[in-house]
Amino acid sequence: MKTVTIEECAEYLLKADNILILMHKSPDGDAIGCGYALAYALRSAGKKAMPVCTDAIPAKYAYITDGLEEQTFEPAYIVTVDLADTQLFGDKLIPYKDKVNLCIDHHGSNTGYAQYGIVDATAGACTQVIKKVINAMNIAIDKNIANAIFTGIVTDTGCFKYSNASAESYVMAAEMIGYGAESFMINRLMFDTKSRQRLELERMALDSMKFCYDGQIAMIFITREMMEQSGAEDSDTEGIAGMPRQIEGVKIGITLKEKEDGVFKISMRSSGNIDVSAVCAKFGGGGHKAAAGCSVKGTPEEAEKAVLTVAGAAL
Amino acid sequence: MKTVTIEECAEYLLKADNILILMHKSPDGDAIGCGYALAYALRSAGKKAMPVCTDAIPAKYAYITDGLEEQTFEPAYIVTVDLADTQLFGDKLIPYKDKVNLCIDHHGSNTGYAQYGIVDATAGACTQVIKKVINAMNIAIDKNIANAIFTGIVTDTGCFKYSNASAESYVMAAEMIGYGAESFMINRLMFDTKSRQRLELERMALDSMKFCYDGQIAMIFITREMMEQSGAEDSDTEGIAGMPRQIEGVKIGITLKEKEDGVFKISMRSSGNIDVSAVCAKFGGGGHKAAAGCSVKGTPEEAEKAVLTVAGAAL
Repeated sequence: MKTVTIEECAEYLLKADNILILMHKSPDGDAIGCGYALAYALRSAGKKAMPVCTDAIPAKYAYITDGLEEQTFEPAYIVTVDLADTQLFGDKLIPYKDKVNLCIDHHGSNTGYAQYGIVDATAGACTQVIKKVINAMNIAIDKNIANAIFTGIVTDTGCFKYSNASAESYVMAAEMIGYGAESFMINRLMFDTKSRQRLELERMALDSMKFCYDGQIAMIFITREMMEQSGAEDSDTEGIAGMPRQIEGVKIGITLKEKEDGVFKISMRSSGNIDVSAVCAKFGGGGHKAAAGCSVKGTPEEAEKAVLTVAGAAL
Repeated sequence: MKTVTIEECAEYLLKADNILILMHKSPDGDAIGCGYALAYALRSAGKKAMPVCTDAIPAKYAYITDGLEEQTFEPAYIVTVDLADTQLFGDKLIPYKDKVNLCIDHHGSNTGYAQYGIVDATAGACTQVIKKVINAMNIAIDKNIANAIFTGIVTDTGCFKYSNASAESYVMAAEMIGYGAESFMINRLMFDTKSRQRLELERMALDSMKFCYDGQIAMIFITREMMEQSGAEDSDTEGIAGMPRQIEGVKIGITLKEKEDGVFKISMRSSGNIDVSAVCAKFGGGGHKAAAGCSVKGTPEEAEKAVLTVAGAAL
């Protein structure tokens, strides 16, 4: 992948038309924000452009997606946004894996699968990069674009609570409010709304919480039985892995989620002092220093014991 | 109270010395942020200045308070910050109630008890007003001041989730990061840390949750027994009243907290469409449209029935 500047991205996009914008599977607020912000911008420059994703866009993002009419065209230019790896294309988009003209991303781990690309790992959200590209194209930011960019910033920074929230994140969020972003509605919808199923699952997860190593490790289980009893879906489990780590004195928070095939998906969170990616690596997993994951096979008791032993050694 | 401008505030403060800065009782992040930011600023201008409060400053704000050495002096100039009403002075500060020279506030309900004052009800946090006063005094913002101002902004806007978070709140937060505010540490400490007692209390409160009127009202109880069993203190209950309203479909969230004397303290929250202050007014209480409170006497069953009847009628 040849690295390009923001200005070159803008130049290439302005020259192109019939632009297909690929978002990663299981799309989150930043992926959706990038895809739609760029599509709105390119359309206002008179182009055909459509964001696409293997998975359906969750209904809660309707305020972003509703304003963009479906367009069908023979794609002539392929852009990926917030998309680190072709493994995240999913079934529907995988045919494009060797045909990506331009990649706009903020994952340091980007595999460089595109012809041209910009990867700004200092950007808390990829919409921060998209915003700069839109500015460089001299396209005015309207309310739709502002809502999309704002959403990417707040979701990828955990409403400014993660360490990736920089002064730029705050400044751009303010700028988007100036362009009409419905900040109050968006933050409430993203961070202050729970389904009854999620509530039920949270209650069960809290009931399952165990403290080990003098309260330095907290562990919760999400079993298939809990999922069934609560009626929760996979999207309802978002963020639950952050719960054990929130507790005072906890250095490693662990979530064991039972999968269909008797395998446990493990999520580990630390406050950054302990490198949980190294812990997860011992089980063939990985991730970041403060947030990592892996899979462990066995009964709940076996999985718990295996994980606790290795995590305990990291304290 | 004679209304003054930011510039006049700055002028008066620069002329004064031996300045006592009063904060309201049960101090929150904004009150503490205002008191300490102003004290740090005035000291860097060579003055004696001390923030004071009837209640102790909670230990979690040590990163704000630790840098300011205790000063004792005969107060010659009395300033209040974030302080709407002399009823909030508390025992220790009440002797100053008729002696306030200057009031810097953002509560529209300010009772005008001071000689001079500025009340900017458009400011999400009162530290936003303090920041402008410090700028007008031409005093450089250092890390201590930045941490204090940042804390006020994020705590009073609920980490930008409340409707009072304006573009100015975001921009000033960014500016404070530029001056060294430890945004990540502060947001984590304020919004992402729970005591084990709080966790236990939350679990019990969730277990007590009832849905009424087709899920339009959700209600939780916090009984004295729960407080005892969980070991939670009053400060651990902060924010719990927001939990029932978060649930999808809930229009009014109600928290009934049992007080020492068999009285229930009721907190009501709505999404803003239903005026819960009108509901609480029927029990002699009040507040804002989306957040209000009142007290009800009786057994838990009587309190629940009384509150539900009136709240149900407001749907």
